[in-house]
Amino acid sequence: MKRPLILISNDDGIRSEGIKTLRAALEKLGVVYTVAPDREQSAASHSLTLHRPLRVEKIALREYAVDGTPTDCVTLAINKILPQRPTIIVSGINKGGNLGEDISYSGTVSAAMEGTLLGIPSIAVSLVSRERFDFRGAARFAARLTGLVLVKGLPKDTLLNVNVPAVKRLKGARITHQGKRIFGDVVFEKVDPRGKKYFWIGGDMLRWEGGQDTDFAAVTKGCISITPVHLDSTNYSAIDELKRWKFS
Amino acid sequence: MKRPLILISNDDGIRSEGIKTLRAALEKLGVVYTVAPDREQSAASHSLTLHRPLRVEKIALREYAVDGTPTDCVTLAINKILPQRPTIIVSGINKGGNLGEDISYSGTVSAAMEGTLLGIPSIAVSLVSRERFDFRGAARFAARLTGLVLVKGLPKDTLLNVNVPAVKRLKGARITHQGKRIFGDVVFEKVDPRGKKYFWIGGDMLRWEGGQDTDFAAVTKGCISITPVHLDSTNYSAIDELKRWKFS
Repeated sequence: MKRPLILISNDDGIRSEGIKTLRAALEKLGVVYTVAPDREQSAASHSLTLHRPLRVEKIALREYAVDGTPTDCVTLAINKILPQRPTIIVSGINKGGNLGEDISYSGTVSAAMEGTLLGIPSIAVSLVSRERFDFRGAARFAARLTGLVLVKGLPKDTLLNVNVPAVKRLKGARITHQGKRIFGDVVFEKVDPRGKKYFWIGGDMLRWEGGQDTDFAAVTKGCISITPVHLDSTNYSAIDELKRWKFS
Repeated sequence: MKRPLILISNDDGIRSEGIKTLRAALEKLGVVYTVAPDREQSAASHSLTLHRPLRVEKIALREYAVDGTPTDCVTLAINKILPQRPTIIVSGINKGGNLGEDISYSGTVSAAMEGTLLGIPSIAVSLVSRERFDFRGAARFAARLTGLVLVKGLPKDTLLNVNVPAVKRLKGARITHQGKRIFGDVVFEKVDPRGKKYFWIGGDMLRWEGGQDTDFAAVTKGCISITPVHLDSTNYSAIDELKRWKFS
């Protein structure tokens, strides 16, 4: 039987330890191609580079660096770099969680979103930590999950957003829904050396909302969170109400 | 009765005609503050600028330019610029449609998404055209819709993504769901003056999918499309199936 072609990408850049650990774990399952940004692209979100040309550099066997975003990487990989369409796309392992509304900011998730748009089963994997980053547990789980998806496929237009807490003993995996972060005061106001005011967006999460089945709840309890994320973000339950509005 | 405070932003930049026409139309409804990028930010998507300071320039009464993304603008407006929390946020009018999966790429929609995250009713308005841009009809409808939302509010965690076709006679408004775009070959491969290969992402939409209730269908028929977009993109219908998978 032919081995599946696995495309991996990320937003931390091709030299990050997260993508290297992921690659090592997935090579048992198939032929792995890495097509990833040549540098860190965090908070690049789901953007496509349309205003300038893109360069692709082959840096090793089946490893390509792109001077663009994670979405650019997936687009170029599928259209120009890979010898055939990939069987699956795995994005990560991101250095830091992608929980709640991070999904809409995250470059890691956006690579999986682009794959899903193109009809390819896609997974985004993130390690929820702020300091110590040991990617091995997350990589083992990513390989396990990739094996399952290769057999079972994924629901239409749906990616899996996986967050692995950085704990010594993982307490299993949970299927979750997206939680919601509550922020504190997020903008710092300062004065530069020339006396001119500037702002810096920062700020910490105060708490999260959404209950015990959220991604936040799972990782807080030491469980791996798996959220099925749909490309169609229509709020269907609002349609009937809105149809009663008088627009003219 | 106190007049509502209306915050407007966009991703085409503060000098764009779309935001000026929008402002003129909304001034009948309340006190309008413009906080918008100082230059075009298209395809900036839902990114927050975290790696550098941001500058705010007051360019006229209740008009502020920010050297950042639409999401930065909304964050700074609410935390630092406005005298009080806005009653509503209107983003646009974008020079070009934001249909189907554009929602996840669009800076215009991302400003409304940030507002929704912060619990403020938010609308994104786009003019579906490629050449002639007459924003007046879209601005009139934006004002009409803003008036309705000021009275009725919006469903929780839901923004309205509005697309107005550039036709002489608008055929009313329709509540729609997100359609799906099918692309052709999107990457051009060329050689630079020094003989080195480069790529450029482009490519046209071949067709759209999703049926007669989509945003694409509405604007194709000359109707205004209003899609309720939910912040939570969990595919709830996939949860039961995934819970049966064996993860360990």
